[in-house]
Amino acid sequence: MYIVCADMEGVFTPEIWINMAEKTGIEELRLTTRDISDYDVLMRKRLKILKTNKLTIHDIQSVIQTMAPLDGAVEFIEWLRSRIQVIILSDTFVEFAAPLMQKLGWPTLFCHHLTIDPNGTITNYNLRQTDSKRNAVISMQNLNFKVIAIGDSYNDITMLQKADRGILFSPPDTVKNEYPDFPVSYNYVDLKTIITDIIQNDTNE
Amino acid sequence: MYIVCADMEGVFTPEIWINMAEKTGIEELRLTTRDISDYDVLMRKRLKILKTNKLTIHDIQSVIQTMAPLDGAVEFIEWLRSRIQVIILSDTFVEFAAPLMQKLGWPTLFCHHLTIDPNGTITNYNLRQTDSKRNAVISMQNLNFKVIAIGDSYNDITMLQKADRGILFSPPDTVKNEYPDFPVSYNYVDLKTIITDIIQNDTNE
Repeated sequence: MYIVCADMEGVFTPEIWINMAEKTGIEELRLTTRDISDYDVLMRKRLKILKTNKLTIHDIQSVIQTMAPLDGAVEFIEWLRSRIQVIILSDTFVEFAAPLMQKLGWPTLFCHHLTIDPNGTITNYNLRQTDSKRNAVISMQNLNFKVIAIGDSYNDITMLQKADRGILFSPPDTVKNEYPDFPVSYNYVDLKTIITDIIQNDTNE
Repeated sequence: MYIVCADMEGVFTPEIWINMAEKTGIEELRLTTRDISDYDVLMRKRLKILKTNKLTIHDIQSVIQTMAPLDGAVEFIEWLRSRIQVIILSDTFVEFAAPLMQKLGWPTLFCHHLTIDPNGTITNYNLRQTDSKRNAVISMQNLNFKVIAIGDSYNDITMLQKADRGILFSPPDTVKNEYPDFPVSYNYVDLKTIITDIIQNDTNE
């Protein structure tokens, strides 16, 4: 029996930090792991920027509340969940993702969480686990699921490699060229076709 | 970070086999593991009854399509998913559960599946894994989730015992008396209170 483990940002929703940079006008929030490769250094910098600009979790959630899922994502996830079980695996934080998850109809999300003081200031971030996407795939396989993993970026590659079937969705050319073995789709129509083929050829009863 | 692992029948939906007995008039379909303790013997008997009565998967799904979730379940699951991640752990089959899952807004469901021939006859059943509910709880704990398990019956007990917090929902008195250590709720209002208390006292950052 197959299950889908899919990344969130870039697959169902826009990138949250980039949207925050645009909507707050704070350009430094555009920094990603491509600019600062050490995730802890990057996150501490982001939290410092939020604090310096006196942005609380409430301000950030207000910004995220204005974001919409990608065009077609709501319909795609409805289609997907009627055919196969789905878990979204993301390196975002549950406090950021909630407004977008609501718009997507509350699919199950495995991600990280924040420490927030009574004033709403984000004082720390808490990774649920390192290499959390790959570990979630392994856990599903231990429950005798075969895993279809869908992602767009470098932080999805270990998950895609561990999965029974990995699919790249709208990846940057760098990712696509570096990992040419994964099928690539750039829209939900093609993604549906790839998934349907996998499910229909599932002979493991 | 907590996650909820909840049984389906008796917690969110009525019992499927009992409803099938009522709606088809085939009294033998009421048999449960309380009558025939060997699950394999019970399931083979059920499949034989379906075959004898020429009931295909389409007939059964038509019956299940007429079933509704328990009163208040749709609102409860919406409330729950806005606060915490949820996975439904059930010993039903995905082909049976789908119409009810749709009415519940497609929560993630881990269960078993059937083998169905081209005519729609159910020829076999396939357990994804033995002791599947308890194993799913262990997997979530390996992903650093703390688990709140909710169930109503004997087949939920190993899951409730393994979970960080176990809750009985509308159990028969036999189950309640045999396992007096679990908090018991008989409606969603009380269940919400128990869950809220657990989440609010979660100090594990």
